[in-house]
Amino acid sequence: MALIEYADASAEVRAVFDDIKAARGVADVNNFWKALAVHPPTLKRTWESLKQVMAPGALDPLTKEMLYLAASATAGCAYCTASHTAAARAKGMTEAMHGELLAVLGMAAETNRLAEALRVPIDPGL
Amino acid sequence: MALIEYADASAEVRAVFDDIKAARGVADVNNFWKALAVHPPTLKRTWESLKQVMAPGALDPLTKEMLYLAASATAGCAYCTASHTAAARAKGMTEAMHGELLAVLGMAAETNRLAEALRVPIDPGL
Amino acid sequence: MALIEYADASAEVRAVFDDIKAARGVADVNNFWKALAVHPPTLKRTWESLKQVMAPGALDPLTKEMLYLAASATAGCAYCTASHTAAARAKGMTEAMHGELLAVLGMAAETNRLAEALRVPIDPGL
Amino acid sequence: MALIEYADASAEVRAVFDDIKAARGVADVNNFWKALAVHPPTLKRTWESLKQVMAPGALDPLTKEMLYLAASATAGCAYCTASHTAAARAKGMTEAMHGELLAVLGMAAETNRLAEALRVPIDPGL
Amino acid sequence: MALIEYADASAEVRAVFDDIKAARGVADVNNFWKALAVHPPTLKRTWESLKQVMAPGALDPLTKEMLYLAASATAGCAYCTASHTAAARAKGMTEAMHGELLAVLGMAAETNRLAEALRVPIDPGL
Amino acid sequence: MALIEYADASAEVRAVFDDIKAARGVADVNNFWKALAVHPPTLKRTWESLKQVMAPGALDPLTKEMLYLAASATAGCAYCTASHTAAARAKGMTEAMHGELLAVLGMAAETNRLAEALRVPIDPGL
Repeated sequence: MALIEYADASAEVRAVFDDIKAARGVADVNNFWKALAVHPPTLKRTWESLKQVMAPGALDPLTKEMLYLAASATAGCAYCTASHTAAARAKGMTEAMHGELLAVLGMAAETNRLAEALRVPIDPGL
Repeated sequence: MALIEYADASAEVRAVFDDIKAARGVADVNNFWKALAVHPPTLKRTWESLKQVMAPGALDPLTKEMLYLAASATAGCAYCTASHTAAARAKGMTEAMHGELLAVLGMAAETNRLAEALRVPIDPGL
Repeated sequence: MALIEYADASAEVRAVFDDIKAARGVADVNNFWKALAVHPPTLKRTWESLKQVMAPGALDPLTKEMLYLAASATAGCAYCTASHTAAARAKGMTEAMHGELLAVLGMAAETNRLAEALRVPIDPGL
Repeated sequence: MALIEYADASAEVRAVFDDIKAARGVADVNNFWKALAVHPPTLKRTWESLKQVMAPGALDPLTKEMLYLAASATAGCAYCTASHTAAARAKGMTEAMHGELLAVLGMAAETNRLAEALRVPIDPGL
Repeated sequence: MALIEYADASAEVRAVFDDIKAARGVADVNNFWKALAVHPPTLKRTWESLKQVMAPGALDPLTKEMLYLAASATAGCAYCTASHTAAARAKGMTEAMHGELLAVLGMAAETNRLAEALRVPIDPGL
Repeated sequence: MALIEYADASAEVRAVFDDIKAARGVADVNNFWKALAVHPPTLKRTWESLKQVMAPGALDPLTKEMLYLAASATAGCAYCTASHTAAARAKGMTEAMHGELLAVLGMAAETNRLAEALRVPIDPGL
């Protein structure tokens, strides 16, 4: 699997990397972006979409990041779980908050499986 | 698939149903609990665990409910998605918040899949 | 979605349907087989494989059927969960056994999610 | 990802570790529990639930463990697959039984996917 | 779950609906877009992304559509499986091609599960 | 996890390994087959099925391989993603085709999740 470093990147890729670095105040982009750079249109579109989706709105950035982590851990993506756990911590998730998030994810997994295994019909009105 | 109604339930099951109704201020329990009542020990343990996990703590009840919804929708459980969408709304999730939550889940799904398809190595330090 | 009934089936498909009916002692095959009949080579290969895999061996038929149910419910396949719950009951799964199976699946879902969300390293020697 | 060793654990965590070690007759707990110890209430609740669910009942301990393995492998949890394969072996799963369990899981995966891709309607009466 | 019809849609939503109808030569948009219209920014971004991704390129439109179907059926999304099966047929997927696609998906599901259950190490050089 | 090398294999296993090597023109089989050799009936059945499914038909071998990759990456199987990416490249998948395949998978993941989270009803006629 190839990772494209800034020094080896095309102008098109460098422009995206520069925007990520500026938006996040980091010296280098994460491996995800270096891997995605093998297909510049996907790199550019994904970053533009992510920037729009994660901007502050009706939900604050920490809540969005914890939802991203919940989705990533539920989907079983190890890379994504690692990077969004770090991102959520950087945005203020404490150990206690992380512990409670984990407890919710675990409980959701259990009740999701039970509901599906029992084929529970959706309640009227929902 | 059997749903056990209060009138047909054992004393053990009724005690759990009563506790759910009191805790939630509802006249009847959801189908999930009526289905789970086929195995009273699982009904009791699941409710006790859920009550503990969803109690207010370092995370507020609405955030916990939105995380539960994020996990349920990501896991593709239709019943759970329906019931936790309703629960999150009851706890204050507005249409705008729901829209942003959906956007985060969709974006997470996309980047989760890309990270796995590209087998991105976890960044040093994460 | 098309279901191919015996009366409308080709000789190739009828031969598979006849074998399923004889092996299971049933008057008609399940919808799964009628749906799969849109592609006769897949119908034939799937049935031959299933017959081989589910034959008694080191594991008895009920245990195999409960494992099939566990996999189907975990994968979230509603059709498969319904049909393998019925099949397991026909092979001797009692309500109490079903309840305990559900409890194991729910617990596995919870600990699976926690292990992945915490990125637990595999213990030495495993 | 932090693993909390016994020597560094709080009294609350040590009590759970002691109970696990006594119940299983092992000198040290697995990494799963050391990782879960970052959130003591989740550690304690998960262990208490697991102990209850895996106790002998209508299903014997080996069958329960193989169902746990089936769920874990189907969910794609590498840690869980490794640890429950080892646990099932310790409880008597032979190579032949493991081979047949794998064959069932593989077959279930194939027919689950086909049933969903064909959107097979659930048979009347199921 | 709300579906927003053209007659009830805002100007922002109508503009996206008009673009979808023009691009696809259809009289009305699918339910997916009517549902997504509850959050106009997600509607607009999703459509713009989809239009870019599905445009002819190194892969022809039918191949892209079959890959979309493969991903949707594998993810177990019933709505998506239904709509992308129809879309692939409209782009030229024959019954024989559909049958072979299903066979590949089923086989992949089986070997995916076996590879994970056996924890097969990635071959050197891959 | 045991890998069974040719030198240590039974005659039954060697016969399958020989057939794989001949069909693919390779000097040794992949780890997947060495792992599967722990259960010779599953090894033999899986290889026979795979050979049948992947033979040229209404779909060409490269399209079949890309569908296999799409299913494997969507299922999150790292081993399978690695081996089928390599196989697709060997059959002619260029970097541009790989990039577009990834873009389709990512987009499918996003719209799959949105469709499920919104519980979109299937359009009439599909």
